[in-house]
Formats: sequence, C-alpha cells, structure tokens
Amino acid sequence: MMDTETRDLLPEGLEDRLPQDTAAATRITRAIMDVLDSHGYDRVQPPGVEFERSLASRMAGIETRRMVRFIDPSSLRMMALRSDITPQVGRIAVTRLKDAPRPLRLAYAGQVTAIKGDGLDPTRERLQIGAELIGHAGTAAAGEVVAVAIEALQAAGATGISVDFTMPGLVDALAAGPWPLTPAQLDAVRRELDAKDAGALVTEGGAAYLPLIHATGPLDAAIARLEALALGEVLDERIAALRQIAARLPAGVRLTLDPTERHGFEYQSWFGFQIFADGVRGAVARGGSYSILGEPAEPAVGFSLYPDPLITALAAHEAPRDLLFLPLGHDTGAAARLRAVGWRTVAALGDACDAATLGCTHRLEGDEVVAL
Amino acid sequence: MMDTETRDLLPEGLEDRLPQDTAAATRITRAIMDVLDSHGYDRVQPPGVEFERSLASRMAGIETRRMVRFIDPSSLRMMALRSDITPQVGRIAVTRLKDAPRPLRLAYAGQVTAIKGDGLDPTRERLQIGAELIGHAGTAAAGEVVAVAIEALQAAGATGISVDFTMPGLVDALAAGPWPLTPAQLDAVRRELDAKDAGALVTEGGAAYLPLIHATGPLDAAIARLEALALGEVLDERIAALRQIAARLPAGVRLTLDPTERHGFEYQSWFGFQIFADGVRGAVARGGSYSILGEPAEPAVGFSLYPDPLITALAAHEAPRDLLFLPLGHDTGAAARLRAVGWRTVAALGDACDAATLGCTHRLEGDEVVAL
Repeated sequence: MMDTETRDLLPEGLEDRLPQDTAAATRITRAIMDVLDSHGYDRVQPPGVEFERSLASRMAGIETRRMVRFIDPSSLRMMALRSDITPQVGRIAVTRLKDAPRPLRLAYAGQVTAIKGDGLDPTRERLQIGAELIGHAGTAAAGEVVAVAIEALQAAGATGISVDFTMPGLVDALAAGPWPLTPAQLDAVRRELDAKDAGALVTEGGAAYLPLIHATGPLDAAIARLEALALGEVLDERIAALRQIAARLPAGVRLTLDPTERHGFEYQSWFGFQIFADGVRGAVARGGSYSILGEPAEPAVGFSLYPDPLITALAAHEAPRDLLFLPLGHDTGAAARLRAVGWRTVAALGDACDAATLGCTHRLEGDEVVAL
Repeated sequence: MMDTETRDLLPEGLEDRLPQDTAAATRITRAIMDVLDSHGYDRVQPPGVEFERSLASRMAGIETRRMVRFIDPSSLRMMALRSDITPQVGRIAVTRLKDAPRPLRLAYAGQVTAIKGDGLDPTRERLQIGAELIGHAGTAAAGEVVAVAIEALQAAGATGISVDFTMPGLVDALAAGPWPLTPAQLDAVRRELDAKDAGALVTEGGAAYLPLIHATGPLDAAIARLEALALGEVLDERIAALRQIAARLPAGVRLTLDPTERHGFEYQSWFGFQIFADGVRGAVARGGSYSILGEPAEPAVGFSLYPDPLITALAAHEAPRDLLFLPLGHDTGAAARLRAVGWRTVAALGDACDAATLGCTHRLEGDEVVAL
C-alpha cells in the first residue's frame, strides 16, 4: 500500500491550480486574448513539444540547456518541451505563414516548461501569453505593441502599471561611433553596465559610459540626461522613437528608462521594455524588437506576459459567484432558461444533496429563483 | 547554413494550429467550458508534468508505457508528461479537495501528450476537455454527465449526435451469477466479446454469452433482446438505469447499446458511453463510471472530449469575421469605442499598409465605418 503523501506528491516547482485560482486564470486569459484579438492579432497554437533544434533555430540566444529533453522514439532525434513560445511563433511566421501579408499579427497562449526552476523561483511550468508583430519593427510597431500589452493587462485587472524602457543596441552603437571600444572592452563594458558597477566600468576602459548609469529613472528626466550628452544621431533617433512610443500610451502609466539594461535578452535589437503592476513581484510582461532568423531575417516586435503572479494576486479578490440549487424533480426547462441568461446551477442527485452544503446562494422553486 | 526543411521540421504527430483552426479551437473550447461551468463544474488546472507514479496511482489500468518520461534532475525520480487529465483530477479530488462537499463537480481543459501515435493515428498531442462528478456514480449522476456532454458538444457546434452505451461490469456480474465461468474462461470470454468473435466465444466455453453479441444496436431493440434473456436482477437494474439516463437526454440524439464493449477502459464500473457526431471519425467523447483509488475508494462518473477532429471539421465552416482598417492618423478614441462594441481592428503602421492587402472588410473614416 502506498503512502498517500508520496503517492500524490507533486515535483518541486509544479502545482495544481484549484477552483478559485483557475477561475481567475480563465477569466484573465480570456480578457487578455480578447484584447489581442480586437487589435487584429490572430491566435496560433504551436505544439508543446518539438525537435530541440527547431525550438532554438529561429531566434538568437535561445538556450536549450534548461529545456526538458528526450529522444523521439520514431526519429531518434532529440525533442524538447518548449520553454518559450515566441520562437515557435517566429517559425510559423517564416514557414507556413511566409506568404501571409505583412505586417503579420500573431498571438498565443500556452504553458511553457523548464527542467529546473530559476534561481530563487522554483517554478518549472508557467503560462505564457503574447503577441508578435512581424514584418515591421519601427516606432509605430513598437508603440502599438506596448499600448496593446498595457491594454491587455488593464483588461485583466492589473493596476498601478509602469513601463521600463531599455535601449538594447545603444552600447554597440556608441562603441561603433562616438565612444569607441575594442571588442574585448565592449564585452567587459556591457557586463559592467549590466551589473551597474561604476568602479569596474572605469577599470575596464569604459569611463565614457559612466553617464549612462546615471541616465536611469523617470523617462523625461532620464532622456534629459541623455540629451545633455549631445551624442548626435545615434542617440537622437532612439530618443525621438521613445518619445513617440510614450506619447501613445495611456495617461497614468508610469514610464522609466534604463538605457543600458538588457534583462538577459541578447536577441533584442533597438528597443526593449518591461511592464510592472501593483501586487506583482518582478516584471509581468517583457518585450521588444528582434529579428526572426532566416535568409533574409525578418524584423519583429512583440511581448510576452507571464500572468501567473497576476492571477494569484487577483484571485483573492474575485467576486464570489451566485450558485443556484436545483432540487430533485425541478423544472429542467426553467433551469435551462436560467443558465442561458447566465445563472450557474447545481442539480441535486438525491435527497442527501443539500443547497447550503454545496455552497448555493439561491434555490429554484417552481420557476422562481429564491435567495437563500 | 541549415536547410530550411530540416530546421523547421515538426516531429511526426505534432502540428501547428494556424489562425483559422485556432480561432475555431478557441471558440469551441470556450463554448464547452461555459456549458460545464453553467452546470456547476469548477475548473481545475493540474500541471502538464508530474511524477510518473502519481499519474498512474489513482486510477486502475493507466499505462505509463506510452507517456513521455524523463528523470527529474532535482529529485532524481521519473517524471512524465500527462497522457490523460482524468487521473490528475481524481488526485486533486482526493487530496487537496478531500474536504470539499460531495458531490464534487470538476472540469478541465488542456493538452495531453503521448510518446508515440496510436496505431494508424500518428497524433501525439491533443486537446482533452472533460468533467468529473465525484462522490456519486449512480443513475442520476450518470444521466447528468451524459446530458452535460451532449449539451457541451451541441454548444460547440456538433450536429448529428449519437450516444453508444456500454455495460462495463455486465460480463463479470453474469459470470459471478447466472452464467458461471472459471477465471481463465472469464478472461477468454471477455477477449472474444471485445473481438465480437462468435466462433471463438463458443470454443472458449462462452456459448451462453452469444446472445449478448446480438443485443447490440438501437437502444430500445437491444434492451428488448436483453430482457428476453430473463436474467433477473443483475440485468434488470442495469436496464432500468439505462432507461432513466436515456429519458433525460434531448430528443433527436440517436441512442445505441453495445452491452459487452469495453473500449479498452478496464477501469469503468457499471456504465460507459461514447459520443459520435457528424463529420467526425471515431468517438468525439467517452465517459462512464469508475473509482478513484484510495482508502476508501471514491465513486465517480465523468467524460472526456477530444475536440481536435471536431475543431478541424467545424473550422472550415466558421463564418469569416469583419476586420476594420484604421488608417494612419485615425481617431484612436473612435477606434477604441468600436473595439469595445465588438469590432476587430488593424492599424496602419506606415503608408505601405493597405486595407485590401491586409484582408480588411471595412475602413475607419473620421468616426465612420465604411464597408470596402
């Protein structure tokens, strides 16, 4: 006889979602997907499992090391569980939808899995929802993507939204222009900027880059500091783009800039962002511009939401729903009509079924709904 | 440089769902889940990956041989991708929801995965949606479950629905009563009844069971043939239950009976059913009564839908949706108001964006919608 504890144990980082949380997850997923759909993003659904190679081939910097991998018994090739849906959507865009008109707007929602948790967070499976705008990666496309991400989060119930912009290609552009660096120096400077280590930055020959560390914070002030550097076109274009993107975002959204931050996204091109919300630790969404690899590469801009922490935060505040008890021998036609106008019913299966025990708020008597 | 064909190849039995099919899948999944929810079934969401042992421990006859399995690097125990969500829901019911009032109604929707396709069908990943009624497995519970399954399929758009009832425990009951068999004979008789091989049935000592092979077909006629056998209580109770279940199903649903069929579900107790629909090869839903293993075991009745073939059948007939083109410099407030009342929009990102090329049916001019 098996010990119950062991028999039913879930592996570390994997959890059941119970009714209250699942109701919130369903509502939030639908709200987000409805916003993406309303802006013309067509949902696609790649498989949860693919050849390991395909999962990494269409975007730079995708690591398969953290994927669950296994040998496909039919092809004897290595397969893997997806850890990110974005590269799958890129693959679909440049293969089966290569002849679809551009810009191509695609959306997705699904579970992604990692073989191990990440640092302090043991979570190995999580929901990823996102949108990709393929064929354009300019300012208008970036502005649409950030605005749609914010609208989707607000529709889901997120409050206190703030957006942190980044300029992923800036350091490379400066190193190739006004603030030259050797390739070895460039690597070191990027690393110390990621670490925001001013002392090490100077030691590594990146003293010129020090002002970038300080041009961080609320968007307008940070842009003012950058403009004071008078670096010319390389920076002016980026600033103008950020201003255009910021201009189309709703009032009340707090905007900040961190010009050298990369958030580990080495594949981003000129633009990146993270979105934060009240009650959620860490970024609830991340996005930016990138290339779908191929000949030729195709520009794209998109975002991914990881709604699990938002779901947990909002589930506690979901309004309880009415529940209508249908006694034995109830009028089934009346019950069907009530369900059709939104009532949720629970039918008695025998004399032992009791409205109060089952958590019902109302009871059907004849064709009348009576509050309990 | 990688060959594109190889680079993007999907493994056999795994597919991308493209926009038209995914729109149908989303609509159908929501319609089904809304019906389950309206009847009081609370959705839960178990993880896609668990310990292999947990996936098999709460239901008899679950084989892990066809699951994708791998070693968990943190516990060094064997994990597996779920190939069936029902045992996971059973696990949740008897562990984290063990104190929830009975009957407990739970629903689920998610992808399930097998390491290999099944016979002629190479599919390795498919959508499973279902409902489980836990704590009761009597006639009222079975009737509710079949009725809800039919309503869910009809809400999804299925037509020409027929239900084939089975009597999973009948042969065992007869062998223990009026038509005795040795344990060895019982196994052989079950096997030949599954194969519907009358000759072999006689050879194996099961001549008495021959009439069961012929009591197959339209429900009323099949029941009449069974009643003519005058087998007493063991059969009368089952027939009375089937009649009660049939009585609460909607008119126009074709009902048949196959008293000895097991459909490979060795864990079913007294009642089983399969549902078929126009344009879908094979059963679109399967269900029945069973036990959730434990001390004590808990009775349950439920069903699983496998909507993928239904989605494919219905996707071809989904009505095309209107799409509203938003030209450069459009009135964003007007666009937002139109989306709020159900319009789907596509915004121009530059002069090259063209309403016709993007498949738009309408165009926003000022705050007016103009058909193209």
